[in-house]
Amino acid sequence: MNQGERYVVHPIGVVRSTLRAPADAPNQAFEGAPEALLEIDPALADGLHRIKPGDELIVLTWLHLADRTVLQTHPTGNPEIPLTGVFGTRSPDRPNPIGVHRVTVTAVERRTRLHVGALEAVDGTPIIDLKIAMRESPEA
Amino acid sequence: MNQGERYVVHPIGVVRSTLRAPADAPNQAFEGAPEALLEIDPALADGLHRIKPGDELIVLTWLHLADRTVLQTHPTGNPEIPLTGVFGTRSPDRPNPIGVHRVTVTAVERRTRLHVGALEAVDGTPIIDLKIAMRESPEA
Repeated sequence: MNQGERYVVHPIGVVRSTLRAPADAPNQAFEGAPEALLEIDPALADGLHRIKPGDELIVLTWLHLADRTVLQTHPTGNPEIPLTGVFGTRSPDRPNPIGVHRVTVTAVERRTRLHVGALEAVDGTPIIDLKIAMRESPEA
Repeated sequence: MNQGERYVVHPIGVVRSTLRAPADAPNQAFEGAPEALLEIDPALADGLHRIKPGDELIVLTWLHLADRTVLQTHPTGNPEIPLTGVFGTRSPDRPNPIGVHRVTVTAVERRTRLHVGALEAVDGTPIIDLKIAMRESPEA
Protein backbone atom coordinates (compact mmCIF):
# COMPACT_ATOMS: atom_id res chain seq x y z
CA MET A 1 0.00 0.00 0.00
CA ASN A 2 3.01 2.32 0.54
CA GLN A 3 1.09 4.53 2.97
CA GLY A 4 4.32 6.31 3.80
CA GLU A 5 4.98 7.28 0.18
CA ARG A 6 4.48 10.81 -0.99
CA TYR A 7 4.66 12.41 -4.41
CA VAL A 8 5.31 16.06 -5.09
CA VAL A 9 3.26 17.87 -7.71
CA HIS A 10 4.31 21.22 -9.15
CA PRO A 11 1.75 23.42 -10.90
CA ILE A 12 2.23 23.73 -14.66
CA GLY A 13 -0.05 26.75 -14.91
CA VAL A 14 -3.14 28.47 -13.58
CA VAL A 15 -6.80 28.89 -14.54
CA ARG A 16 -7.99 32.41 -15.35
CA SER A 17 -11.76 32.70 -15.12
CA THR A 18 -14.56 35.06 -14.27
CA LEU A 19 -15.55 32.52 -11.59
CA ARG A 20 -14.19 33.99 -8.37
CA ALA A 21 -15.66 31.88 -5.57
CA PRO A 22 -16.52 28.19 -5.27
CA ALA A 23 -20.11 29.14 -4.45
CA ASP A 24 -20.36 30.63 -7.95
CA ALA A 25 -18.96 27.53 -9.66
CA PRO A 26 -21.42 25.04 -11.11
CA ASN A 27 -20.89 21.42 -10.05
CA GLN A 28 -20.08 20.45 -13.62
CA ALA A 29 -19.03 22.38 -16.69
CA PHE A 30 -22.19 21.45 -18.61
CA GLU A 31 -24.24 23.23 -15.94
CA GLY A 32 -23.22 26.60 -17.31
CA ALA A 33 -19.55 27.25 -16.54
CA PRO A 34 -17.88 30.17 -18.36
CA GLU A 35 -15.03 30.02 -20.83
CA ALA A 36 -11.59 30.19 -19.28
CA LEU A 37 -7.93 30.81 -20.04
CA LEU A 38 -5.26 28.23 -19.19
CA GLU A 39 -2.04 30.14 -18.52
CA ILE A 40 0.75 27.58 -18.79
CA ASP A 41 4.29 28.18 -17.51
CA PRO A 42 6.30 29.47 -20.51
CA ALA A 43 9.16 27.16 -19.43
CA LEU A 44 6.88 24.25 -20.42
CA ALA A 45 5.92 25.64 -23.85
CA ASP A 46 7.51 22.66 -25.63
CA GLY A 47 4.98 20.42 -23.88
CA LEU A 48 2.14 22.21 -25.71
CA HIS A 49 3.62 21.72 -29.20
CA ARG A 50 0.90 20.80 -31.76
CA ILE A 51 -2.06 21.58 -29.46
CA LYS A 52 -4.49 23.54 -31.63
CA PRO A 53 -7.99 25.01 -31.64
CA GLY A 54 -10.60 22.26 -31.74
CA ASP A 55 -8.55 19.84 -29.65
CA GLU A 56 -10.30 18.38 -26.64
CA LEU A 57 -8.18 18.20 -23.52
CA ILE A 58 -8.46 16.62 -20.09
CA VAL A 59 -7.36 19.26 -17.58
CA LEU A 60 -6.21 18.15 -14.13
CA THR A 61 -6.35 20.86 -11.47
CA TRP A 62 -5.28 21.08 -7.86
CA LEU A 63 -8.43 22.07 -5.96
CA HIS A 64 -6.56 24.34 -3.59
CA LEU A 65 -9.65 25.40 -1.61
CA ALA A 66 -10.72 21.82 -0.79
CA ASP A 67 -10.82 20.17 2.64
CA ARG A 68 -8.52 17.14 2.48
CA THR A 69 -9.87 15.62 5.72
CA VAL A 70 -13.39 14.94 4.40
CA LEU A 71 -14.25 11.27 3.65
CA GLN A 72 -18.04 11.48 3.32
CA THR A 73 -20.36 14.11 1.88
CA HIS A 74 -23.87 14.72 0.63
CA PRO A 75 -23.47 14.72 -3.18
CA THR A 76 -24.04 18.12 -4.80
CA GLY A 77 -24.38 19.52 -1.27
CA ASN A 78 -27.99 18.29 -1.11
CA PRO A 79 -28.69 17.12 2.46
CA GLU A 80 -31.52 14.92 1.19
CA ILE A 81 -29.02 12.72 -0.67
CA PRO A 82 -27.56 10.19 1.81
CA LEU A 83 -23.97 10.57 2.99
CA THR A 84 -21.68 9.01 0.41
CA GLY A 85 -17.96 8.26 0.41
CA VAL A 86 -16.10 11.04 -1.38
CA PHE A 87 -14.55 8.50 -3.80
CA GLY A 88 -18.08 7.83 -5.09
CA THR A 89 -18.74 11.54 -5.70
CA ARG A 90 -17.23 14.50 -7.57
CA SER A 91 -16.83 16.59 -4.41
CA PRO A 92 -13.67 18.73 -4.38
CA ASP A 93 -13.21 17.69 -0.74
CA ARG A 94 -11.11 14.48 -0.73
CA PRO A 95 -7.66 13.32 0.43
CA ASN A 96 -5.90 14.31 -2.82
CA PRO A 97 -8.01 17.17 -4.19
CA ILE A 98 -7.45 16.77 -7.93
CA GLY A 99 -10.08 18.00 -10.36
CA VAL A 100 -10.70 16.34 -13.75
CA HIS A 101 -12.26 18.52 -16.44
CA ARG A 102 -12.81 18.09 -20.17
CA VAL A 103 -12.50 21.23 -22.31
CA THR A 104 -12.27 22.24 -25.94
CA VAL A 105 -9.43 24.52 -27.04
CA THR A 106 -10.80 27.59 -28.80
CA ALA A 107 -7.56 29.52 -29.37
CA VAL A 108 -3.83 29.35 -28.61
CA GLU A 109 -2.18 32.68 -27.90
CA ARG A 110 1.57 33.25 -27.54
CA ARG A 111 2.24 29.49 -27.37
CA THR A 112 1.29 29.03 -23.71
CA ARG A 113 -2.10 30.72 -23.28
CA LEU A 114 -4.88 28.29 -24.14
CA HIS A 115 -8.40 29.68 -24.42
CA VAL A 116 -10.91 26.93 -23.67
CA GLY A 117 -14.66 26.42 -23.46
CA ALA A 118 -16.73 25.84 -20.33
CA LEU A 119 -14.61 25.07 -17.26
CA GLU A 120 -15.98 24.78 -13.70
CA ALA A 121 -12.84 25.93 -11.85
CA VAL A 122 -12.39 29.24 -10.05
CA ASP A 123 -9.87 31.89 -11.03
CA GLY A 124 -6.45 31.04 -9.63
CA THR A 125 -6.93 27.26 -9.55
CA PRO A 126 -3.55 25.61 -10.19
CA ILE A 127 -3.28 23.38 -13.28
CA ILE A 128 -1.19 20.23 -12.78
CA ASP A 129 -1.58 18.32 -16.07
CA LEU A 130 -3.12 18.39 -19.55
CA LYS A 131 -3.81 15.37 -21.79
CA ILE A 132 -5.49 14.95 -25.12
CA ALA A 133 -9.00 13.51 -24.73
CA MET A 134 -9.72 10.66 -27.06
CA ARG A 135 -13.24 10.32 -28.41
CA GLU A 136 -12.90 6.58 -28.72
CA SER A 137 -11.51 6.22 -25.22
CA PRO A 138 -13.99 5.05 -22.60
CA GLU A 139 -12.58 7.36 -19.96
CA ALA A 140 -12.30 10.54 -21.97
CA MET B 1 1.71 31.01 -11.93
CA ASN B 2 3.04 30.03 -8.48
CA GLN B 3 5.98 28.12 -9.96
CA GLY B 4 7.40 27.73 -6.48
CA GLU B 5 4.28 26.04 -5.15
CA ARG B 6 4.25 22.33 -4.49
CA TYR B 7 1.50 19.97 -3.45
CA VAL B 8 2.00 16.67 -1.70
CA VAL B 9 -0.01 13.65 -2.82
CA HIS B 10 -0.29 10.52 -0.69
CA PRO B 11 -1.35 7.22 -2.28
CA ILE B 12 -4.80 6.02 -1.26
CA GLY B 13 -4.18 2.51 -2.54
CA VAL B 14 -2.47 0.37 -5.14
CA VAL B 15 -3.36 -1.41 -8.40
CA ARG B 16 -3.09 -5.21 -8.40
CA SER B 17 -2.89 -6.56 -11.95
CA THR B 18 -1.43 -9.34 -14.03
CA LEU B 19 0.30 -6.57 -16.03
CA ARG B 20 3.85 -6.55 -14.72
CA ALA B 21 5.81 -4.30 -17.07
CA PRO B 22 4.94 -1.12 -18.97
CA ALA B 23 5.90 -2.87 -22.21
CA ASP B 24 3.02 -5.30 -21.58
CA ALA B 25 0.47 -2.55 -20.93
CA PRO B 26 -1.73 -1.44 -23.81
CA ASN B 27 -1.84 2.29 -24.47
CA GLN B 28 -5.51 2.42 -23.54
CA ALA B 29 -7.80 0.09 -21.62
CA PHE B 30 -10.00 -0.60 -24.63
CA GLU B 31 -6.98 -2.06 -26.41
CA GLY B 32 -7.20 -5.22 -24.31
CA ALA B 33 -6.16 -4.46 -20.72
CA PRO B 34 -6.92 -7.09 -18.08
CA GLU B 35 -9.24 -6.78 -15.11
CA ALA B 36 -7.61 -5.42 -11.98
CA LEU B 37 -8.03 -5.08 -8.24
CA LEU B 38 -7.94 -1.67 -6.55
CA GLU B 39 -6.62 -2.21 -3.02
CA ILE B 40 -7.60 0.90 -1.07
CA ASP B 41 -6.08 1.82 2.31
CA PRO B 42 -8.48 0.41 4.97
CA ALA B 43 -8.09 3.70 6.89
CA LEU B 44 -9.99 5.35 4.00
CA ALA B 45 -12.85 2.81 3.92
CA ASP B 46 -15.42 5.50 4.79
CA GLY B 47 -14.54 7.24 1.54
CA LEU B 48 -15.80 4.22 -0.43
CA HIS B 49 -19.22 4.13 1.26
CA ARG B 50 -22.00 3.38 -1.27
CA ILE B 51 -19.68 2.41 -4.14
CA LYS B 52 -21.19 -0.74 -5.61
CA PRO B 53 -20.85 -3.16 -8.53
CA GLY B 54 -21.88 -1.49 -11.78
CA ASP B 55 -20.59 1.93 -10.78
CA GLU B 56 -18.23 3.57 -13.22
CA LEU B 57 -15.24 5.29 -11.65
CA ILE B 58 -12.49 7.61 -12.80
CA VAL B 59 -9.25 6.27 -11.30
CA LEU B 60 -6.29 8.62 -10.94
CA THR B 61 -2.94 6.88 -10.64
CA TRP B 62 0.61 8.03 -10.00
CA LEU B 63 2.63 6.72 -12.94
CA HIS B 64 5.64 5.91 -10.81
CA LEU B 65 7.76 4.57 -13.68
CA ALA B 66 7.39 7.72 -15.82
CA ASP B 67 10.13 10.16 -16.81
CA ARG B 68 9.11 13.58 -15.47
CA THR B 69 11.69 15.45 -17.58
CA VAL B 70 10.12 14.60 -20.96
CA LEU B 71 8.25 17.45 -22.72
CA GLN B 72 7.89 15.99 -26.23
CA THR B 73 7.27 12.49 -27.52
CA HIS B 74 6.15 10.49 -30.52
CA PRO B 75 2.54 9.54 -29.67
CA THR B 76 2.02 5.81 -29.04
CA GLY B 77 5.79 5.43 -29.39
CA ASN B 78 5.48 5.47 -33.19
CA PRO B 79 8.49 7.34 -34.62
CA GLU B 80 6.51 8.10 -37.79
CA ILE B 81 4.14 10.34 -35.82
CA PRO B 82 5.76 13.79 -35.46
CA LEU B 83 7.12 14.89 -32.08
CA THR B 84 4.24 16.27 -30.03
CA GLY B 85 4.12 18.12 -26.72
CA VAL B 86 3.32 15.65 -23.93
CA PHE B 87 0.30 17.75 -22.90
CA GLY B 88 -1.24 16.90 -26.28
CA THR B 89 -0.69 13.15 -25.77
CA ARG B 90 -1.52 10.39 -23.28
CA SER B 91 2.15 9.54 -22.68
CA PRO B 92 2.92 8.58 -19.06
CA ASP B 93 6.09 10.70 -19.37
CA ARG B 94 5.15 14.26 -18.30
CA PRO B 95 6.01 16.71 -15.49
CA ASN B 96 3.28 15.44 -13.13
CA PRO B 97 2.79 11.79 -14.15
CA ILE B 98 -0.87 11.27 -13.27
CA GLY B 99 -2.88 8.63 -15.13
CA VAL B 100 -6.62 8.99 -15.77
CA HIS B 101 -8.56 5.75 -16.30
CA ARG B 102 -12.24 4.90 -16.50
CA VAL B 103 -13.28 1.55 -15.03
CA THR B 104 -16.43 -0.34 -14.09
CA VAL B 105 -16.68 -1.83 -10.60
CA THR B 106 -17.44 -5.56 -10.81
CA ALA B 107 -17.30 -6.47 -7.10
CA VAL B 108 -16.52 -4.93 -3.72
CA GLU B 109 -14.77 -7.23 -1.27
CA ARG B 110 -14.15 -6.49 2.42
CA ARG B 111 -15.13 -2.81 1.95
CA THR B 112 -11.80 -1.65 0.46
CA ARG B 113 -10.98 -4.12 -2.31
CA LEU B 114 -12.63 -3.01 -5.56
CA HIS B 115 -12.57 -5.44 -8.46
CA VAL B 116 -12.78 -3.52 -11.74
CA GLY B 117 -12.85 -4.14 -15.46
CA ALA B 118 -10.11 -3.37 -17.98
CA LEU B 119 -7.36 -1.14 -16.57
CA GLU B 120 -4.11 -0.28 -18.40
CA ALA B 121 -1.91 0.17 -15.30
CA VAL B 122 0.83 -2.18 -14.16
CA ASP B 123 0.81 -4.08 -10.88
CA GLY B 124 1.98 -1.85 -8.04
CA THR B 125 0.86 1.45 -9.58
CA PRO B 126 -0.16 3.81 -6.76
CA ILE B 127 -3.77 5.03 -6.79
CA ILE B 128 -4.21 8.67 -5.75
CA ASP B 129 -7.95 9.34 -6.26
CA LEU B 130 -11.27 7.82 -7.28
CA LYS B 131 -14.36 9.69 -8.52
CA ILE B 132 -17.71 8.60 -9.83
CA ALA B 133 -17.89 8.92 -13.62
CA MET B 134 -21.00 10.61 -14.88
CA ARG B 135 -22.46 9.45 -18.15
CA GLU B 136 -23.86 12.87 -18.88
CA SER B 137 -20.62 14.61 -18.07
CA PRO B 138 -18.56 15.68 -21.08
CA GLU B 139 -15.30 14.71 -19.40
CA ALA B 140 -16.26 11.34 -17.99
